[in-house]
Amino acid sequence: MSAHVYDEPRVDAPATGERIVGRSVSRLEDPPLVRGEACFAGDVNFPRQLHMRVVRAQTAHGRIVAIDTTAAVALRGVVAAWTGADVADIPPIPFRATKVTGLEPYCQPILAQQRVRYVGEPVAVVFADSPYVAEDAADLVDVQIEPLPPILAAHDEPGEFLPGLNTEPTVIRKGYGDVAAAFAAAHAVVALDLSVGRHSGVPLECRGAVARYDAARDILEMYGAAKKSHWNRDEMAKMLGRSPSSFHLYEGHVGGGFGVRGEIYPEDVLVCLAALRLRRAVKWIEDRRENLMATNHSREQRHQVEAAVDADGRILGIRNTFFHAQGAYTRTHGARVADMSAGLLLGPYRVPAYQVAGHYRLVNKTPAATYRSPGRYETTFVRERLMDAIAQRVGIDPVEARRRNLIKADEMPYARPLDALGTDVVLDSGDYDGLIDKTLARLDWPRLREDLARRRASGQCVGLGLAMFVEKSGLGPSDMVRLTVDVSGAIELVTGAGSVGQGMETALAQICAQELGVDYRRVRVIHGRTDLIEFGNGAHASRVTVMSGSATQIAARKVRAKALDVAAKLLDATPADLTMADGRIRRADDAQGRGIGLDEVARYLHPGSRTSDGHEPGLSAEGWFYSDHMNYPYGVHAAQVCIDADTGQVRLEKYLVAYDVGRAVNPMLIEGQIVGGLAQGIGGALFEEFTYDADGQPLSTTFADYVMVTAHEMPPVDVLITEDAPSPLNPMGLKGAGEGGTNAAGAAIAAAVDDALGAPGFVTRLPIKPLDVRRHIAAREAARMLRSERQPI
Amino acid sequence: MSAHVYDEPRVDAPATGERIVGRSVSRLEDPPLVRGEACFAGDVNFPRQLHMRVVRAQTAHGRIVAIDTTAAVALRGVVAAWTGADVADIPPIPFRATKVTGLEPYCQPILAQQRVRYVGEPVAVVFADSPYVAEDAADLVDVQIEPLPPILAAHDEPGEFLPGLNTEPTVIRKGYGDVAAAFAAAHAVVALDLSVGRHSGVPLECRGAVARYDAARDILEMYGAAKKSHWNRDEMAKMLGRSPSSFHLYEGHVGGGFGVRGEIYPEDVLVCLAALRLRRAVKWIEDRRENLMATNHSREQRHQVEAAVDADGRILGIRNTFFHAQGAYTRTHGARVADMSAGLLLGPYRVPAYQVAGHYRLVNKTPAATYRSPGRYETTFVRERLMDAIAQRVGIDPVEARRRNLIKADEMPYARPLDALGTDVVLDSGDYDGLIDKTLARLDWPRLREDLARRRASGQCVGLGLAMFVEKSGLGPSDMVRLTVDVSGAIELVTGAGSVGQGMETALAQICAQELGVDYRRVRVIHGRTDLIEFGNGAHASRVTVMSGSATQIAARKVRAKALDVAAKLLDATPADLTMADGRIRRADDAQGRGIGLDEVARYLHPGSRTSDGHEPGLSAEGWFYSDHMNYPYGVHAAQVCIDADTGQVRLEKYLVAYDVGRAVNPMLIEGQIVGGLAQGIGGALFEEFTYDADGQPLSTTFADYVMVTAHEMPPVDVLITEDAPSPLNPMGLKGAGEGGTNAAGAAIAAAVDDALGAPGFVTRLPIKPLDVRRHIAAREAARMLRSERQPI
Repeated sequence: MSAHVYDEPRVDAPATGERIVGRSVSRLEDPPLVRGEACFAGDVNFPRQLHMRVVRAQTAHGRIVAIDTTAAVALRGVVAAWTGADVADIPPIPFRATKVTGLEPYCQPILAQQRVRYVGEPVAVVFADSPYVAEDAADLVDVQIEPLPPILAAHDEPGEFLPGLNTEPTVIRKGYGDVAAAFAAAHAVVALDLSVGRHSGVPLECRGAVARYDAARDILEMYGAAKKSHWNRDEMAKMLGRSPSSFHLYEGHVGGGFGVRGEIYPEDVLVCLAALRLRRAVKWIEDRRENLMATNHSREQRHQVEAAVDADGRILGIRNTFFHAQGAYTRTHGARVADMSAGLLLGPYRVPAYQVAGHYRLVNKTPAATYRSPGRYETTFVRERLMDAIAQRVGIDPVEARRRNLIKADEMPYARPLDALGTDVVLDSGDYDGLIDKTLARLDWPRLREDLARRRASGQCVGLGLAMFVEKSGLGPSDMVRLTVDVSGAIELVTGAGSVGQGMETALAQICAQELGVDYRRVRVIHGRTDLIEFGNGAHASRVTVMSGSATQIAARKVRAKALDVAAKLLDATPADLTMADGRIRRADDAQGRGIGLDEVARYLHPGSRTSDGHEPGLSAEGWFYSDHMNYPYGVHAAQVCIDADTGQVRLEKYLVAYDVGRAVNPMLIEGQIVGGLAQGIGGALFEEFTYDADGQPLSTTFADYVMVTAHEMPPVDVLITEDAPSPLNPMGLKGAGEGGTNAAGAAIAAAVDDALGAPGFVTRLPIKPLDVRRHIAAREAARMLRSERQPI
Repeated sequence: MSAHVYDEPRVDAPATGERIVGRSVSRLEDPPLVRGEACFAGDVNFPRQLHMRVVRAQTAHGRIVAIDTTAAVALRGVVAAWTGADVADIPPIPFRATKVTGLEPYCQPILAQQRVRYVGEPVAVVFADSPYVAEDAADLVDVQIEPLPPILAAHDEPGEFLPGLNTEPTVIRKGYGDVAAAFAAAHAVVALDLSVGRHSGVPLECRGAVARYDAARDILEMYGAAKKSHWNRDEMAKMLGRSPSSFHLYEGHVGGGFGVRGEIYPEDVLVCLAALRLRRAVKWIEDRRENLMATNHSREQRHQVEAAVDADGRILGIRNTFFHAQGAYTRTHGARVADMSAGLLLGPYRVPAYQVAGHYRLVNKTPAATYRSPGRYETTFVRERLMDAIAQRVGIDPVEARRRNLIKADEMPYARPLDALGTDVVLDSGDYDGLIDKTLARLDWPRLREDLARRRASGQCVGLGLAMFVEKSGLGPSDMVRLTVDVSGAIELVTGAGSVGQGMETALAQICAQELGVDYRRVRVIHGRTDLIEFGNGAHASRVTVMSGSATQIAARKVRAKALDVAAKLLDATPADLTMADGRIRRADDAQGRGIGLDEVARYLHPGSRTSDGHEPGLSAEGWFYSDHMNYPYGVHAAQVCIDADTGQVRLEKYLVAYDVGRAVNPMLIEGQIVGGLAQGIGGALFEEFTYDADGQPLSTTFADYVMVTAHEMPPVDVLITEDAPSPLNPMGLKGAGEGGTNAAGAAIAAAVDDALGAPGFVTRLPIKPLDVRRHIAAREAARMLRSERQPI
């Protein structure tokens, strides 16, 4: 494995023409960021704005006895202070539906009503002329709580928490085939009890929201939106009793999304409500301590899983019982993480029978939701641990165990009798064996293994782990893009998709530019503006390039057809005679000629022009793309670790991510996504965890305690992007690339640690803690010492 | 004539259903205005904004010797000061084309270059942290001018002014028929030399503009737009070297438009340029003194006109030579006022031969442009004075003189071999005789004349004057409206039309509501936002209700059809079986049934719904309306005056405006337009004039000198709206109603003054000044005294 980090970006020029899709051109997003001109939520200010500060529960579970805001309101500069009673008319925050029913009673009110259920829960808010006064005033709010015993583990018996929850209606059951028969016929049964620790996306930018109400137009605006601006608009409009068209959300620059930023949180609704009630702009910016205990957590899940296998290590059936520790309330994802954990665990393998019971449970911790590769990071860890255990059990190489169970390329599309997120799971395309081959070749696998064996023999604690995974992307049902060429030839692309740093502006611009034969830098991508486009799906589920990219192509082809039609008239030709390149339309038989520019076509189509008879004015079009199914990119992670026997510290020496994206619009962007995603996957595998004490007090509320991955911890990463299995579900064959870097990191690192320790099955829990590794090594040493003492000299 | 002011508004409820068009429902625009929540340009503020102050020329004509900004820039809080040299790279302000060529050299630079050409011309600008500092700093800018002789009258010999101007290329010539033969064959020739004084629209809100540049998005924004936001965006984008799609104009509340507000002025470009260069928001608010010498003037025109008539007073031909005193520069209207003065003078009369030479001349006064009823106020005065003179000459009643020359209803459409604003003048419909009949009946004409004769006999100086006119409205070529019903059933109507107080939001909402069977208050009309709609024509030329109203009907009918199609599916019916009323769609055979709401249809069509197969998502549509020709509403003004013989003051006792609008969407709005417009027409007839001394110093720079009409001066006004001649050029038969109240006020009042004085042909100039009337009365008295002295006792 070479030591380089990832492929060099391809050169920029020429940035136009037919071949722009597939090239690693520079990001359109970067200039304002590197010049310091970006506008994050904290940069949004309005004259006379108020600042909101949240008073948060300091008890994990308890009854609210009294909240006294008298002293807070008396502070000079304080305009208002609200408790739950002041917002009792506002419904709790809703969630996106799954088939799991009965969750409504467990949604979070925007300020606690009667009880507090996690440390960090908003119980009151203060509004003041300055953030400093607001913070001082919040400290003066006197909250009296009568503590109740907290529930802290999803697999604990449900105590007195919320009536009706943690019982049968919230168990997710899926499955197919005769699981009992499979286990009865098994050569062996492999059973594991595996846990993934509570961690989450921790963006560099904390959350923030600024709302203002324009009474003259009766328009409410909220700045600081991200991820799901349109859904949030619709749902918050309902909560506030407004029409969605009278409420605009604005997405600015987003300093990290990862699934957690941009959901509806109590604070978002509170600033909007305050802007309406107090008739001044209201700003709220989260601090880091709040961020670590108020923004969505994720991942905490325990799986009791068992596989029935035949003598060759082929899987006959899998039983999967898991406990999903949702936290204190259902949040906007509803039960989607648990639903995906149930529906997507099987990954790339042929599994004749499967049965899952997923227990969606509330605990007295920060509510959880989706975080990059939700449900897949967890279940890839579970599934791949299981594959390693099967290999061990039947005595074959872990790679061979996987090969024997992989779905073959000629079985695609592969319909699995399961659903996830309401759509049937049909693996649309893939050559899993082929990717394993390419991965092993890229790694020079036999030599690598020999190298490591040599190093181990010399006393180094080094190991190699490999994990396979299937991602999901391109969630439907539809996306729309509106494209307009103005009279200067500048192109405006309005999308309901969101930009959270992933490079969507560049990718959509490339697709548009390819169709129109223009420089992609001429395309201005406008996103996250609910006032400019009626519908949108934001940025989540690795769907933007697939769905909005396909819609872009459709819209661009309509614009192209209209432009060619006009140009044909002006150039005395038929559209078929014409070419589009370098922003101009020329006759194919006059490729060096002047032709006419898109700007000229737009001017011809200007409604003020009296020449555009027969065409509707404007060089513009809308493109809708529809999809009933998700598609399924896939990949391999390979990790090489070296363990410090004295400290138990796991150091990643090298890392490979091989990933098939169907079609890569901009390989550099995908590489960036993968390396960034991997850093988060490594965090969950080795470093990051939200821990609590026995009273439910969070112990990870600073970066000293919640340990993020930095450049120091990152290994050299080799990224192998393949395009072997274009998706048949969209014209360009696109699949999403946002989550493949994260997905299998826990699984691959766990396997590598097992390998380094020579202890198959050692890792059963993420993150892998140095203390546990140290203990294992110490115990092994002690046992070795004991054995050597017993042996005759 | 009754003493009531205008018809009572019709009651509001019910405000829905088939009959909403034609009803005087309350204005949607009013609630924020009466609650004080409106947002005018002065209300727009951004954090850290700079304030701009303009240094203006104090000499009417001269060479710039030096401008020293040193002391200004040294003032604490001043950020920058610019002179012409700093903006020499910015092209001058362009104009809208007419057939007059060669005007380009006479466009205004945003800061004076080399010369100053009128008092008030911007010569430098200062930017500071506060408006107070900016004003102080502007006083410190030292401007040295070497004076040159000014030209102050359009009919003066062109002096050294601007090379090439005031010569043949800027003479507008139109005509048809054998004019020489007509005059040769004439029974009599009536020749008049008539002048209209320089006055203009003087909105309550002075101009203002706030610009800011968002470097992150590379978007320039300007707030304070009005009238022609899209055209201004396009042209200012060119001046600033930007694509139009990267430049957004925002129209807020507008405290009066009248044609003068919302044109591109130097200050608009300067704030935008400053926002780009200084990277801070920049605000400029005009003060009243600036407003009276910097905002467009209008109207100053001298006509030397003669008519050839036969013995019955029938017109054989008209010669019309006029001098248009444009001011120091060509402004954005180009030569449109002069063009309309040439093309539209003939009004409702049959004129077999016509010849016009309009001299478009620059003078050292504030540049002029369009003001409510531009070119028509002036020429109606000229034409109707001519009709009165013809009546006098051939000895017939003025009404009879008009009747003999009116085009008859059965001659419609009446194509006149002339053009105006680039379109052929085809009077589309009209029953001019019918309206005269209705007017005389409404006035109880014979009794009214008897009353006045009686009062005159008793020594009162009372008179009655009547004038007829043809307005023009509905200028094409096209307008688009985008209509969207959201999932709550709220309707958003996005238009490129502008709102300048005329009530367009209410009118468009009514048209939309009628088509969709909803309460018009459910329709939110969004206008003046170039970021929300690519094209638009703002608010001018009495075109909004005609063009945008027709587009609204088209869009609403598309939405209706889509809604009925969906409802038919859901109600198990065919669209033809369904009715739409009260916001619901029901089966006609179940008119009391629940039916389904538009909100339900919108939810069905939401792209997140999986049920809307076969329909493109969204309950929305665009409607384009096209028109190649203007249409021509028409009317009669009748004024009754009483003159104070001691002071010469003309007091209006009663006033009638009869106006045929084809179809009245909201009669109350039209009445409001007419009464408001009349106030301005009266101002030009009796009070308002921008006067200058011999050096070109303006003498009317305060409201003490420029005398506006107040409630005190307004007579009781009777408004007779008729719908006898719907326009055949649009489906609803609409004609514009914005300018009919102004058009003939000068003409009718002049006739009434003549009548009161018993001096036909006395008034040859507007405004009619008390001093002149007083002199006339004094002279007459002196003559009478002389006569009575001469007579034997």
